[in-house]
Amino acid sequence: MLMKRKYSQIFLLPLFYFTFSASSAFSQTEDSLWIRKIYDEVLLNGKSYQNLEELTSKIGHRLSGSPQAAKAVEWAAQKMKEAGADSVWLQEVWVPHWVRGVQEKGTIVQSNGARQDVPVCALGMSAPTPKDGISAGVIEVNSFDELKKLGEAKIKGKIVFYNCPFDQRHVNTFQAYGEAGKYRWAGPSEAARYGAVASIVRSLSSSDNDFPHTGSMRYNDSLPAIPCAAISTNGANLLSRILKADPGTKFYLKQSCQLLDSVLSYNVIGEMKGTDFPNEIIVAGGHLDSWDQGTGAHDDGAGIVQSIEIIRSLKSLSIKPKRTIRIVAFMNEENGLRGGKKYAQAAKEKNEHHIAALESDAGGFTPYGFSMAGSKEERIKFLQWAPLFKPYNVWHFDYQHGGADISPLEEQGVPVMGLVVDSQRYFELHHANSDTFDKVNKRELQLGAAAMSALIYLLSFHGL
Amino acid sequence: MLMKRKYSQIFLLPLFYFTFSASSAFSQTEDSLWIRKIYDEVLLNGKSYQNLEELTSKIGHRLSGSPQAAKAVEWAAQKMKEAGADSVWLQEVWVPHWVRGVQEKGTIVQSNGARQDVPVCALGMSAPTPKDGISAGVIEVNSFDELKKLGEAKIKGKIVFYNCPFDQRHVNTFQAYGEAGKYRWAGPSEAARYGAVASIVRSLSSSDNDFPHTGSMRYNDSLPAIPCAAISTNGANLLSRILKADPGTKFYLKQSCQLLDSVLSYNVIGEMKGTDFPNEIIVAGGHLDSWDQGTGAHDDGAGIVQSIEIIRSLKSLSIKPKRTIRIVAFMNEENGLRGGKKYAQAAKEKNEHHIAALESDAGGFTPYGFSMAGSKEERIKFLQWAPLFKPYNVWHFDYQHGGADISPLEEQGVPVMGLVVDSQRYFELHHANSDTFDKVNKRELQLGAAAMSALIYLLSFHGL
Repeated sequence: MLMKRKYSQIFLLPLFYFTFSASSAFSQTEDSLWIRKIYDEVLLNGKSYQNLEELTSKIGHRLSGSPQAAKAVEWAAQKMKEAGADSVWLQEVWVPHWVRGVQEKGTIVQSNGARQDVPVCALGMSAPTPKDGISAGVIEVNSFDELKKLGEAKIKGKIVFYNCPFDQRHVNTFQAYGEAGKYRWAGPSEAARYGAVASIVRSLSSSDNDFPHTGSMRYNDSLPAIPCAAISTNGANLLSRILKADPGTKFYLKQSCQLLDSVLSYNVIGEMKGTDFPNEIIVAGGHLDSWDQGTGAHDDGAGIVQSIEIIRSLKSLSIKPKRTIRIVAFMNEENGLRGGKKYAQAAKEKNEHHIAALESDAGGFTPYGFSMAGSKEERIKFLQWAPLFKPYNVWHFDYQHGGADISPLEEQGVPVMGLVVDSQRYFELHHANSDTFDKVNKRELQLGAAAMSALIYLLSFHGL
Repeated sequence: MLMKRKYSQIFLLPLFYFTFSASSAFSQTEDSLWIRKIYDEVLLNGKSYQNLEELTSKIGHRLSGSPQAAKAVEWAAQKMKEAGADSVWLQEVWVPHWVRGVQEKGTIVQSNGARQDVPVCALGMSAPTPKDGISAGVIEVNSFDELKKLGEAKIKGKIVFYNCPFDQRHVNTFQAYGEAGKYRWAGPSEAARYGAVASIVRSLSSSDNDFPHTGSMRYNDSLPAIPCAAISTNGANLLSRILKADPGTKFYLKQSCQLLDSVLSYNVIGEMKGTDFPNEIIVAGGHLDSWDQGTGAHDDGAGIVQSIEIIRSLKSLSIKPKRTIRIVAFMNEENGLRGGKKYAQAAKEKNEHHIAALESDAGGFTPYGFSMAGSKEERIKFLQWAPLFKPYNVWHFDYQHGGADISPLEEQGVPVMGLVVDSQRYFELHHANSDTFDKVNKRELQLGAAAMSALIYLLSFHGL
């Protein structure tokens, strides 16, 4: 790209297709100036990136119940204080304590005895194999329908291999994730229904790579809890090719994961008290726990440091919110959602009035919108703010849920919002050893923090 | 990110703020179906990513006049044929032949004799230093105003160090590039005006890194052509700190670059003849040359392989364009723009009727819009297509130039367009050794190719 021709490539606000902004009831001029200040503060002096480096390098991954998760609780409380929260406290949450045990082993064993190891890892909450592992023939399926047709006659005693790749046609990779994800979530029990002894699932990843991607699954209590693992997408491609050439191929799986007694852990909450309407509460957050692969940099260290940045940026600009802002670092999103449930339950018991909740849990990538679920009136008010975000390339406002951790609040009728970010790279690293700090771009992360800060500013001054 | 809560996160087309689409004069339904097919084809069977791997690994960087640029010409012609062009030909272009020579050396030499090497590289078209290098005191400036104020009294015999960082407040990094870029483009001659013996410029990069970022500059013919180099941003930070503590610090620069005789090279052109209006020509392209740092993966290998993908995708879908489509791999964008000028000149001489030109030259990142420069009527027609792109997150349509290579066509009154992509990561690697294939994301690259193919489809069927 040549220099002189690009001097003029300045972003222009295409107001012409935002005609409804003229009817807005509040002063968008003043708000737009404050939002500009917030963006400048975050982009020039933001701490989210260095906080994420600290979280991922000093603590690392943070599976619920782990010593690292306990360290992360202390760390988040300290960071909220440093950012300028009026008060910081911990909210008790009992969390499941599942441990992976020793490194899993997965081996393709062909009829002629040839053996090839492939990358596997236990799905979260999976049962272990017997101590010496399991070896069995493999049945590859591409849908639950196919599984059902094969039935017990073909499945019994076998390992079911769900090999359903992402549908690359979806522009939003979350849609492909959603479609393929049911085989991870419900696949093991469905396989057990027909007598399978174990289940392996193609990693829920958008690319061909060598990382197994773990994630949550749930056993059907009326069926045997068979061991289940994710296999890397490259490993799945290899296994599929070998099975076509040699249907007698077996798979050997060994994993020693187990579910221990529940552990006392915490949501971490930092608050800026509202000056005019202190009893109207706005939540913004992400989840502090992660899987035990990689260091949970995008999922969801990003959401945590962005949320803390909201306090820091508003404080730095001496903005005193009219309504109370609560930053919540939720515990146990990945394998239980206990933190989100506990927060909502406590809010209900205390009869607290939550007017909105916002979550960032789709990775620290370039933001381009907000999703929102609420009443028609709330949505209309929310949409009036859209033009304020256009100069920052945040243009997409849709009607969807906000995030897992705030879904229990949503069930109580609280309007919820989620930061929508570019999804192209997320599922290359999601729940895998590749989800590390080096995959996070500083400016992309900061732009998300700035967008969240701006929205929380608007909510705190105008309500919803 | 938990599975079950995100099943529903499906992209919704927010039609409500695209009311003008109803007045569109053509069948958007049929077009939207074809665009869906084009996207599916590119996302499922696209060849742009593997072509880019081939270009960058088999050929590498492709500075004008180099043997690699000559190889790239053959490669591009072959790829256009494979993609299904009706005809492919080369258009002669004489290009400057500047060579870097041996690896440059830049050393900070403190008053006490302590020496520290820092990463530097000659700016494109720079003069060499004397064989043994240049050593001189350093004057750091942050603007041309500052330089002027210092004047000959302070500058004469010194090395001017332009240390103007990107303004991080700009969401679009091209704006920061444009602002800081004048010091690279015009800085050397401005320094020479006051008697400087050399000039070093802080790399035009959005991040702190260890790569010097080269790029074009132009000497003012009435002033001495002093040697000029880029210093990495980390190196610039270091030099600046040292100068503050020790103003007597000198800098040693050695480079052996030189401008050789011009070389015969080529634009590569592949054509799909229009069925109904063969004399109405639509150009789509990028530039085949690159700097000699990295492998020109994003700049502009991406634009080349995306443009070739237009032919491949339309051919695969048996789409026969009504108007003629010409894919042009322009030569010598980086240091001369000779290819773009030659193409436009030849078009004028042959009295060809170009109805539009499109360029991709901002990196192979997630696309979110098109810029466009043309008459009011052309813009209105162009904007009517905006709703067709919304399902693909391509939403931003502004009035700007299209790209450097097609700017000579623009001067002839041809409406020009440019693919607008997410700019957050581009200037970390632009014109540097870090611009390599591993920085390109397959889906991001393909989404750009699909957006371009869809726009060229519309232009070829509906004109402008």
